[in-house]
Amino acid sequence: MLPKRIALPVFASDPLSSVAYSPDEIFLTLALAGVTAYTFSWKIAIVVGFVMLAVVLSYRQNVQAYQSGGGDFEVASTNLGAKPALTVASALLVDYVLTVAVSISSAAQYLATTVDVARGHEVLIAGAAVLFLAAMNLRGVRESGTAFAIPTYIFIFSMLGMVCWGLGQHFIGGGLGRAESADLQVIAEPEFADGFAGVAAAFLLLRAFASGCATLTGVEAIANGVPAFRKPKGKNAATTLALLGAIAITLAMSIVALANIIHAQVVEDPEHQLRGPNGEVLVDYHQAPLVGQIAHVVFDNFPPGFFLITLSTGMILLLAANTAFNGFPVLASILAKDGYAPRAFAARGDRLAYSNGIVILAGFSILLIVAFDAEVTRLIQLYIVGVFVAFTIGQAGMVRHWTRLLKNERDPVVRAKMQTSRTINAFGLSVTGIVLVVVLITKFTHGAWISIVAMAIAFLLMTGIRRHYDNVAIELAADERDRVLPTRVHAMVLVSKLHKPTLRALAFAQASRPNALEAVTVSTSDSDTAELLKQWDERNLPMPLKVLHSPYRELIRPVVEYASAIRDANPRGVVAVYIPEYVVGRWWEQFLHNQTALRLKGRLLFTPGVMVISVPYQLASGKERAEEMREEYWLAPGLRRGSDGRR
Amino acid sequence: MLPKRIALPVFASDPLSSVAYSPDEIFLTLALAGVTAYTFSWKIAIVVGFVMLAVVLSYRQNVQAYQSGGGDFEVASTNLGAKPALTVASALLVDYVLTVAVSISSAAQYLATTVDVARGHEVLIAGAAVLFLAAMNLRGVRESGTAFAIPTYIFIFSMLGMVCWGLGQHFIGGGLGRAESADLQVIAEPEFADGFAGVAAAFLLLRAFASGCATLTGVEAIANGVPAFRKPKGKNAATTLALLGAIAITLAMSIVALANIIHAQVVEDPEHQLRGPNGEVLVDYHQAPLVGQIAHVVFDNFPPGFFLITLSTGMILLLAANTAFNGFPVLASILAKDGYAPRAFAARGDRLAYSNGIVILAGFSILLIVAFDAEVTRLIQLYIVGVFVAFTIGQAGMVRHWTRLLKNERDPVVRAKMQTSRTINAFGLSVTGIVLVVVLITKFTHGAWISIVAMAIAFLLMTGIRRHYDNVAIELAADERDRVLPTRVHAMVLVSKLHKPTLRALAFAQASRPNALEAVTVSTSDSDTAELLKQWDERNLPMPLKVLHSPYRELIRPVVEYASAIRDANPRGVVAVYIPEYVVGRWWEQFLHNQTALRLKGRLLFTPGVMVISVPYQLASGKERAEEMREEYWLAPGLRRGSDGRR
Repeated sequence: MLPKRIALPVFASDPLSSVAYSPDEIFLTLALAGVTAYTFSWKIAIVVGFVMLAVVLSYRQNVQAYQSGGGDFEVASTNLGAKPALTVASALLVDYVLTVAVSISSAAQYLATTVDVARGHEVLIAGAAVLFLAAMNLRGVRESGTAFAIPTYIFIFSMLGMVCWGLGQHFIGGGLGRAESADLQVIAEPEFADGFAGVAAAFLLLRAFASGCATLTGVEAIANGVPAFRKPKGKNAATTLALLGAIAITLAMSIVALANIIHAQVVEDPEHQLRGPNGEVLVDYHQAPLVGQIAHVVFDNFPPGFFLITLSTGMILLLAANTAFNGFPVLASILAKDGYAPRAFAARGDRLAYSNGIVILAGFSILLIVAFDAEVTRLIQLYIVGVFVAFTIGQAGMVRHWTRLLKNERDPVVRAKMQTSRTINAFGLSVTGIVLVVVLITKFTHGAWISIVAMAIAFLLMTGIRRHYDNVAIELAADERDRVLPTRVHAMVLVSKLHKPTLRALAFAQASRPNALEAVTVSTSDSDTAELLKQWDERNLPMPLKVLHSPYRELIRPVVEYASAIRDANPRGVVAVYIPEYVVGRWWEQFLHNQTALRLKGRLLFTPGVMVISVPYQLASGKERAEEMREEYWLAPGLRRGSDGRR
Repeated sequence: MLPKRIALPVFASDPLSSVAYSPDEIFLTLALAGVTAYTFSWKIAIVVGFVMLAVVLSYRQNVQAYQSGGGDFEVASTNLGAKPALTVASALLVDYVLTVAVSISSAAQYLATTVDVARGHEVLIAGAAVLFLAAMNLRGVRESGTAFAIPTYIFIFSMLGMVCWGLGQHFIGGGLGRAESADLQVIAEPEFADGFAGVAAAFLLLRAFASGCATLTGVEAIANGVPAFRKPKGKNAATTLALLGAIAITLAMSIVALANIIHAQVVEDPEHQLRGPNGEVLVDYHQAPLVGQIAHVVFDNFPPGFFLITLSTGMILLLAANTAFNGFPVLASILAKDGYAPRAFAARGDRLAYSNGIVILAGFSILLIVAFDAEVTRLIQLYIVGVFVAFTIGQAGMVRHWTRLLKNERDPVVRAKMQTSRTINAFGLSVTGIVLVVVLITKFTHGAWISIVAMAIAFLLMTGIRRHYDNVAIELAADERDRVLPTRVHAMVLVSKLHKPTLRALAFAQASRPNALEAVTVSTSDSDTAELLKQWDERNLPMPLKVLHSPYRELIRPVVEYASAIRDANPRGVVAVYIPEYVVGRWWEQFLHNQTALRLKGRLLFTPGVMVISVPYQLASGKERAEEMREEYWLAPGLRRGSDGRR
């Protein structure tokens, strides 16, 4: 259980890290209309802050009403039914992938701003960072809350420090310098050549606002983490949420203000949209993000300050991506338990279930990073739609929740409280709903359609999987006729060479005392078979060796056909096929052995009335591996959820 | 068996296709010293032609002495021992990958020359082409010799036609025009600013020669295909080889001549090395390969001629890549039979063994194409070293071969013939050896080191695999003590739900009449377990149900530990673990089921004294799939080797 001072940083990385890129999005969208449009940036920031307020207020209701950690998915499935819940789940799955892609790409950008040699290698760096996070999470490194607290507090305090120092210099001290980018010329899009007005301008403002709403991503994380708080969980989570919202709004607004003060400029595509003070083409210009530009001006005579800001920002972005690595497998396991995801994702007993989720998350985010060249701006276009789908459906669910409770509640005091809550959630619903519409309209063609397609695919996949499991369950249901005992067991032991594993399989088969027992070999080479028959006779083995001839040197088909023939001759009996296998310990040794045995087993499972018996023979390396496995610490699922605080 | 008129085109695609890129390599290497160096191009072409002559003469000996199709690998292993043979094998494996990468990249370049929209998408096109070839070969499409003959003959005759028409115009007719690139300025490297002389010039000439030797790639293909010829195989193969060599030399020399006549220019890096006639930077300049430039000039007033040349060149490059898709799996299967590659590559019984080879070849060649941006020039640097390693070792083996035969031969006529052969091969050895040294010296730092590292890795991997197999064979060898019968069989049936598969497993286990029989379930949820126990009682099942409690909700460890405990209590007995499995038919359904069963089986195989019995229950889709598999045509390995003519 986490005290608030640890819980805050644990959940803070995701929502706070967005200030690393969301103010930039406002500015560079406006820059399409030229520098004059920058004057709208602080107005847009205020509207974003207002939306943040609405969302935080609403989620304070959520965390108190639903404390199990199911978040919007649980709210939706309890109050709205399976389809809205699955929509939320699809949105969240897509958003986890984008959280990783956006955060890591942004972190790579900050690294490139700080360390020159990193420039131009952002895709590689971002890809490597994702692999690193995936590897850490696959190994089940149990990060403690404290390990998260330190970089997060460093980030919060260094950012607040920079903001205070910068605003202080501006308002009280000697004034702030100008950003390096202040004197560059921004080339406006042709449609804004005649100034910033009309429908195009309004649309661009809406688009800039929609981009700025990236600040809100990650707020919902607390709703999924309520169980990690100390009691009273709901109240503590709500307080943390308020605090977090306040910090996020403060930081975002301050950065927009400072960017305006120092006349910082950022554009989507510096190569084509920026020119030098005299209109010349810029050579090797690297565009630093706003936070970097501000840090550069504020800490002009103090480089360590600049490094502290950019590196702690990169660090918190890495932590934000890491929260997705914790959240995605948990969501996948919840979905798997409900039959909407493959059972292999359900966290039953060990960390392998989580591994599947981690690998898939890493794979998709690397795909996005490579496809979008690790460019934050292009990825952001895909990002926000999912967040607001989840927000909107979650709030709709909450409104339903209160309405449902109000039906049976008679106490007027409680009723009044519930009605207030319902009003807050209804307000949240309207705000997030409007933002969702704005996001859809302004960003659909810029990339949001990709997210929507991805969500639709996820949705269809999940319903398809559920339908499949339901059908299988019906097909498997047992009835009374299912207890007919086979009349006899015909055992055959497959023999390729007469080595230890074969002898063991023969012994085990004999010990099982079947009604009939024979050894079977497939002859692909006359000389090998002759040699085997000779050895067979020499050893005086007590069962016959049947030779199946295979003119086309197939190994599998003759065995399957022979087993089928025996079964057909005796339909009420069962054929037991013994396969000697030797077990090797190292993973690469697996590639060198038993491939045929594996495929044969796969084929035999399709043959009715056959059971397949693997008789293992452990080689030295296999025995060593068995020892290792016995000693290995088998992490229980509850033990690897460090970052959300549950240990 | 192939008549020569079909055998020629079948083997021609690989060696002839190299004229699509090797003359370019000579020119663009020389271009580093500026245009004046182009005057050396035809001298270099003559030396390359001379090397080709030496190689063709030598290989005419090889194909008559070794007719089984083992090629240089067989020659080396028979005459020089395992290590040289493995070196040849490593070189050939690497070269197959490069054949695909180079041919397909070149084909993409020709497509981009012909079809404008393809420009800038060469990597994508090349990657897709590799996947297409892999898919065709995975499906086991049996290309007939005739299907190969048509495009190859189109290529040969259209190229010869272009050459005759072009030279005719030049020497007899009204003269040829100038290439579009003729008036461009080539910027020489700084070291050649003072003219083309000294050590640097000599080194560049050697490098250009080494690059031109790319013309020789593919000649060895016939040595691997001797069995496909009509009798007398050796003689027919030798004749085909001579014919092929003659055509290749003629085409390569003619292209170099025509390129000189029309003053065509090609450089490694057009963006930086080429300027317009007045020194201006070129915008969107697409550099066509020499064959394309020549076709453009020769067929100036006849566009279909240009399209015929470039498209048939692209086609033959595709066919050349396809030969690697046939050769690589065959070589891998030969190596696997000798224990140098995983057994899964050995072609025993069906096409799956070949599939592994095809997938690996496709994977590595796509890797190369992506890593080198589908740029032929950069890939060529890696290519030639492997070819000449194989040539040189092969010829050394042939010299040994004749020396060995001469020892026991007394007939003076035969001896004289053998001595002539030995002289030819010794000559070939010297020439290829010298070229190998030249290639190593001039290309090592340009990329040949990558091939050498890859060859070394392949070599070490193969010896490591062989050592592993040898060790396992020793460990597995049976002795007299290996026939101890287990005293008793303790059977346990794993139960998760009481559905049809479970009932079938219980019935099969009962039919096997073990000494002890119990059902075992792992309890991860109290309510589920209570429900199961209730159903168990209701059904009146004749064996006890043992509940293993799993506080950490693990499924696998409790079962493994319980099985181990039973076995430890009775070390001379055997524990039979029955696992009910339901079998689904579609590949994607596999992901949704049995993952736990699969992992449990994997773990149990490491447990001594345990055998694992899979009791399959076929669901409807599984039964359908079984029917399909029964009907599927199981291709024998001899049936899918279409392209080298054996069917």
